[in-house]
Amino acid sequence: MHHCWLNGKITDVASAPFHFNDLGVLRGYGLFDYFRTYNGRPFQWDWYWERFERSARILRIPCPVTQQETRQIVSELFALQGGEDCAFRFLLTGGFTGDSISMHTPNFIIISEDLHHDAPGEHEKGIRVMTYDFVRDLPMLKSTDYKHLLILRHEFGERGVTDVLFHKDGYISELSRSNVFIVNGNKLITPHENILEGITRRTVLELARPDFEIELRPVTLQETLEAEEVFTTSTTKRVLPITGIDDRVIGSGRIGPKSQILLDRINDLVRSW
Amino acid sequence: MHHCWLNGKITDVASAPFHFNDLGVLRGYGLFDYFRTYNGRPFQWDWYWERFERSARILRIPCPVTQQETRQIVSELFALQGGEDCAFRFLLTGGFTGDSISMHTPNFIIISEDLHHDAPGEHEKGIRVMTYDFVRDLPMLKSTDYKHLLILRHEFGERGVTDVLFHKDGYISELSRSNVFIVNGNKLITPHENILEGITRRTVLELARPDFEIELRPVTLQETLEAEEVFTTSTTKRVLPITGIDDRVIGSGRIGPKSQILLDRINDLVRSW
Repeated sequence: MHHCWLNGKITDVASAPFHFNDLGVLRGYGLFDYFRTYNGRPFQWDWYWERFERSARILRIPCPVTQQETRQIVSELFALQGGEDCAFRFLLTGGFTGDSISMHTPNFIIISEDLHHDAPGEHEKGIRVMTYDFVRDLPMLKSTDYKHLLILRHEFGERGVTDVLFHKDGYISELSRSNVFIVNGNKLITPHENILEGITRRTVLELARPDFEIELRPVTLQETLEAEEVFTTSTTKRVLPITGIDDRVIGSGRIGPKSQILLDRINDLVRSW
Repeated sequence: MHHCWLNGKITDVASAPFHFNDLGVLRGYGLFDYFRTYNGRPFQWDWYWERFERSARILRIPCPVTQQETRQIVSELFALQGGEDCAFRFLLTGGFTGDSISMHTPNFIIISEDLHHDAPGEHEKGIRVMTYDFVRDLPMLKSTDYKHLLILRHEFGERGVTDVLFHKDGYISELSRSNVFIVNGNKLITPHENILEGITRRTVLELARPDFEIELRPVTLQETLEAEEVFTTSTTKRVLPITGIDDRVIGSGRIGPKSQILLDRINDLVRSW
């Protein structure tokens, strides 16, 4: 059973006291982060914490606990759910409000969650995505704002896609919850603006550096459609090929050799984490 | 004491069952509306309901009750708080989710709230606002997304302002939660794009039509700064002069004669509602 820590108290998730009178609910004033353990250890813990703190600073919500205190809470929650690898969600909101707008004390919640498991064959077949003309508001911030994704998700079934690729003025930025890379020859290219700086993106860039020529720069939608390989990176997906964009097949329509190399490297890394 | 209706059950507000595992919290997937009663009757009820339904359609969250059922609930909550004039908030979210992303059953909450009371002299002195280069995401939708306002509010004190005027590419749109009008001679001018179509805006346009020349069109920040009078309209503010924008005094720095006419008209209307 999963537990959560909410403002100093641990309860099972279902019993956690909460109220809609929270600025996260009433005013969308909230941020989160999401990471997982491998072999019982939080993956890239320092990097996730750094990003979480940065989001909190941008939103100007003070984080009520330190990194070290939080690490201790994560350990307790990890033990409570049985010591199997799991995911953790941090949720930091403006807290309960008396007048629907003024902030007093933030609500900070740490939740253990089931892991996302890969669908069979997903990494070989890759995924198909739709394009959407949009750039996220405050993209460097891991806010809770996923309005556009939630609206678009209603169309995913009929379009035969599982995610959306945001682009604006001819340039791509990211999928709804993950970063995008393109591969051409020995070049590994990924946008450096209008994105959330993913921890898996950072990990993959480190793993690729010895053998790839890396370009962090604006990436057009057109070159994405014409790339030899395209893949996305996230905590749950690691390196996941994008083999279809709208009605266009990308590359061979299966995982490409360079994506396979990077997937193998991150799989090796997490196995021995 | 205020009560609320949540998915079919009325409780006092403090006891309402809720959980952070709601798409409104986790994904900012929520909308609201807000209106008040005068003489016990919801002001412009049909117009508020129409807007609420439109917001729900845009976000693709099905509203679980009809206008007539909702009117009945509002009456019950009105009686429970003692039959004095009050405000009502509708909150409609994507509902509780099993996987932090999939929608099942929306959460619809109707809450009675205390009225906002005018600060003494506020309508004569007017308010001062800061400008901010921004246009709301999906502005026609009364979503719960007020991130930018909540970030900026931290600066209001030191800047001596109480609200923010959004402008983009030289054109104004709205304050954070209310519409903006400018007056020049007999012309009443207000933006028609990138705004939430306020119910008080619509009411004021009706009240003004017999005696003003009305222009619904893009309005530049420059003409706003140079206007004879500027005011804002909202459910709580009715017609409230804007007498300062950043460091600039607008008009006489007090309520102008045309704003006073429109304030008097809406005050007359609500007195006899």
